[in-house]
Amino acid sequence: MLGGMQDFELRVPRLIDHAAREHGAREIVTCWADGHETRTTWRDVHRDARKLAQALEKMGVQPGDRVATLGMNHSHHLVAWYGAIGMGGVIHTINPRLFDEQLAYIANHAEDRVLFYDKAFQPIVDRLRSAWTTITHYVCFDDDGPGGFAAVVAGESGDYAWVEGPERAPVMLCYTSGTTGNPKGVLYEHRSTMIHAMAGVAPWLLSLSSEAVVLPVVPMFHAAAWGLPFAGALSGAKFVYAAVNDPAVLCRLMNEEKVTHSAGVPTVWLSMFQHIDATGDAPRYLRQVTIGGSAAPRSMIRRIMDMGATVKHLWGMTETSPIGTAGARPPHWEEMSLDEQLDHVSKQGQIPFGVELRVLDDAGIVQPRDGQSSGRLQIRGPWVIKRYFKAEADCIDADNWFDTGDVAVIHPDGSMQITDRAKDVIKSGGEWISSVDLENAACGCPGVAEAAAIGVAHPKWDERPLLLVVRKAGSAVTAADITAHLAGHVAKWWLPDEIIFVDDLPHTATGKLLKTALREQYKNHRLASA
Amino acid sequence: MLGGMQDFELRVPRLIDHAAREHGAREIVTCWADGHETRTTWRDVHRDARKLAQALEKMGVQPGDRVATLGMNHSHHLVAWYGAIGMGGVIHTINPRLFDEQLAYIANHAEDRVLFYDKAFQPIVDRLRSAWTTITHYVCFDDDGPGGFAAVVAGESGDYAWVEGPERAPVMLCYTSGTTGNPKGVLYEHRSTMIHAMAGVAPWLLSLSSEAVVLPVVPMFHAAAWGLPFAGALSGAKFVYAAVNDPAVLCRLMNEEKVTHSAGVPTVWLSMFQHIDATGDAPRYLRQVTIGGSAAPRSMIRRIMDMGATVKHLWGMTETSPIGTAGARPPHWEEMSLDEQLDHVSKQGQIPFGVELRVLDDAGIVQPRDGQSSGRLQIRGPWVIKRYFKAEADCIDADNWFDTGDVAVIHPDGSMQITDRAKDVIKSGGEWISSVDLENAACGCPGVAEAAAIGVAHPKWDERPLLLVVRKAGSAVTAADITAHLAGHVAKWWLPDEIIFVDDLPHTATGKLLKTALREQYKNHRLASA
Repeated sequence: MLGGMQDFELRVPRLIDHAAREHGAREIVTCWADGHETRTTWRDVHRDARKLAQALEKMGVQPGDRVATLGMNHSHHLVAWYGAIGMGGVIHTINPRLFDEQLAYIANHAEDRVLFYDKAFQPIVDRLRSAWTTITHYVCFDDDGPGGFAAVVAGESGDYAWVEGPERAPVMLCYTSGTTGNPKGVLYEHRSTMIHAMAGVAPWLLSLSSEAVVLPVVPMFHAAAWGLPFAGALSGAKFVYAAVNDPAVLCRLMNEEKVTHSAGVPTVWLSMFQHIDATGDAPRYLRQVTIGGSAAPRSMIRRIMDMGATVKHLWGMTETSPIGTAGARPPHWEEMSLDEQLDHVSKQGQIPFGVELRVLDDAGIVQPRDGQSSGRLQIRGPWVIKRYFKAEADCIDADNWFDTGDVAVIHPDGSMQITDRAKDVIKSGGEWISSVDLENAACGCPGVAEAAAIGVAHPKWDERPLLLVVRKAGSAVTAADITAHLAGHVAKWWLPDEIIFVDDLPHTATGKLLKTALREQYKNHRLASA
Repeated sequence: MLGGMQDFELRVPRLIDHAAREHGAREIVTCWADGHETRTTWRDVHRDARKLAQALEKMGVQPGDRVATLGMNHSHHLVAWYGAIGMGGVIHTINPRLFDEQLAYIANHAEDRVLFYDKAFQPIVDRLRSAWTTITHYVCFDDDGPGGFAAVVAGESGDYAWVEGPERAPVMLCYTSGTTGNPKGVLYEHRSTMIHAMAGVAPWLLSLSSEAVVLPVVPMFHAAAWGLPFAGALSGAKFVYAAVNDPAVLCRLMNEEKVTHSAGVPTVWLSMFQHIDATGDAPRYLRQVTIGGSAAPRSMIRRIMDMGATVKHLWGMTETSPIGTAGARPPHWEEMSLDEQLDHVSKQGQIPFGVELRVLDDAGIVQPRDGQSSGRLQIRGPWVIKRYFKAEADCIDADNWFDTGDVAVIHPDGSMQITDRAKDVIKSGGEWISSVDLENAACGCPGVAEAAAIGVAHPKWDERPLLLVVRKAGSAVTAADITAHLAGHVAKWWLPDEIIFVDDLPHTATGKLLKTALREQYKNHRLASA
């Protein structure tokens, strides 16, 4: 016996239909790379997406084909998402910060048919055009001449009905850039994206509504922009896009457009603080700041809270659409001291309806939620990956658990806290030392610009920590200084066996420490203690 | 080509699993009919629901079978919902305020197998037991002796895994009580209920989170309690239930438990205002008051806003799960005058993602959103009915539109405003006169206790309004007084052709004016103007 309710496929074009119908006049403001501003609306995006869908069909794109973008945040990019999806295509956002060989691999592996790109990335297109074997059409987003995005859209009528299909059909493709091997593609579905969007607007996650004015600093090429282009249409929020990440521009837009919600990585706020300190100008309307990508320092959280905004950590990954957890306020928030509030917000957040998390030790035993027992973090749920694009096997276990590669604890109140990446954790005498905690503690020592902690083989303890430190310009900080500082912040047995000063440290294309290179470099290093 | 994300059936037991796992200690407080209070938690409800599922299986209930309740709001009722649903059954909430013949019809039509009931409804059970032909087990919710609910639950281990099944399987059955014909059953599905719950927690609808403390005055037997038992588990809200609707009890609970969210029909607030005026005691922690069932008067909205709470109208019907619209704040709320805010909140609200609304005139032409063009209101969406239980045909048109039987306008900003019931509207000279507007205006005249406006046949105008008025005790208000009052509130051609004073007016079981009886009584009435 089935129930008596209506058929309704969870398809992404319903979002832009809704936004145009119920929030049609709500604006999408863009500050472009050259500084000029444009104002469009959800109704306009809906119309232009239909026109773009027609144009894509004329270019020979078929339902299921991938349509790529290489662009910053702007209204044309938003039109490209909904246009490609609306004609049954799969929008594929490419991260322009990747290395050329990754860029070449990704577009070919995805078999992209069309590439929309920003003028700023013309050099990338010029370098890689001959390497990209499947792209037949290149359209520049911010070229207003013939063949540019505006002209392509203007050439169509917009008299178009979205392509229908099953809700499990693919809708978007994002590649993860690991530090080893080729990037891997995550192929989102209409259904997973819709459930993620419906979950995402909730008060405990992005907390969006038609009252919200959102300036997403997170780029549209990063982990589906945390789902904001979808959740924003669902809620009818106003969007303010900046194609450049200059804190002066961001701060001006936040005040001119009365931005209430912002979302980005911590470094955005470091540069914003510098701007505030230098100019006295500060965002005045922010109510919620969502920080993801990596953990925000406690001092950053406090400063944003002092500005009157709620701060939320968002933890997730491309494989999780990407929302895994977010920092919701607990019921007793008002009775907490500032220190307790900061402790709470410093964690990665609570587990929202939809996903489940668990922590496993090395033996595969599920760990208790005691805030102490750390282990590999696993996740499952409707917006979590099952199989990488074109892979021949699933990447989950028989019960759907996906191993995140993070090391975490879960606290008794259900808050999750990342302590390290699994491959970076230092295993000493059967216990785990968090390389992240060591690095953060070391960076708090005056004179230290950057630090990397890696495990080095040790005959007795299996591994022991080696700390590589870049001094601040002009500093003469010593190993003894750093060790003395660390002793006040970490357990004694966590103290590095050796500290080596270096001129710089290697990084990935997205700015993270490239620890694989460091481990390779120091794999035969003999610690003085060994 | 399908996408790469996980399989995940949208099944209701996931809600209680989530609530127990992530918000396990959050409380469910009940003030029972005899005044004693109990405190339980989502974790307890989860455990007891599993025990009840086992007990239901022992009673011979099979997946798909209907399990009925005849109860007020309390934690046992909540356990009954999740227990019956968890073992694959269909929870069927019966409205104890219906007439005996309706109660007999409904339980037999539903083929209910088990009935859980409140001691307060023992007389109903005694009267109807012989008429109910399919119920094999009767369990009293608040009988703590052998065979009572607590004993039934205590007899099981709770070692139970929810029954799995398709997401389109039925989960809940609610009957609508029309003024004509037999009640009709609406059979909700796991999927429709889950999408409704995910939509329901959004800031623009119920706006729930684990910070919320909800006192749902809306009964669990009324239109799925507006989805609160589902949305509450999804969000981890604390619930405060009162099995009696005494304003003194409600007010005390609201303050003792720091209730932030309340939901109920307007009359709840009329009696609460009397309590406040009489005692000086008032709810102090309310942040959101959701009002549905019928429209709240402007003065009521203002008084609750003055108490510091956001007021939201919720419009919907059993056939729509029930949320159709809710009164979200527009982006420019802060810049609106109090009068403009009251105008906005007095309407039935905005159209949330998921459902679509349209207004059709008599010729079936879709009307513009101009706030003027009224017509029949139609709705479609994932939580809207397709076919009544056991009906032989769908109740929607080829494009899924369900006719609500309401007459409404949609304003340019997307707000919907109900103007009448379609069958009650008075059709005069090709134009429509709202019987509801006439009655509301008449009730504002000093000396008028209640009024009913109906259309009576007229040779020239097709129909003209007849107003039936019940005077307040001791009042000598005249027809001329009322006409003079009305002239200040409605168009001249809306003025009733005749006003007749009566001692009382007929009502339905749920307290609405029974206009079918009035139309029947006055169908041969010859208006003085005719």
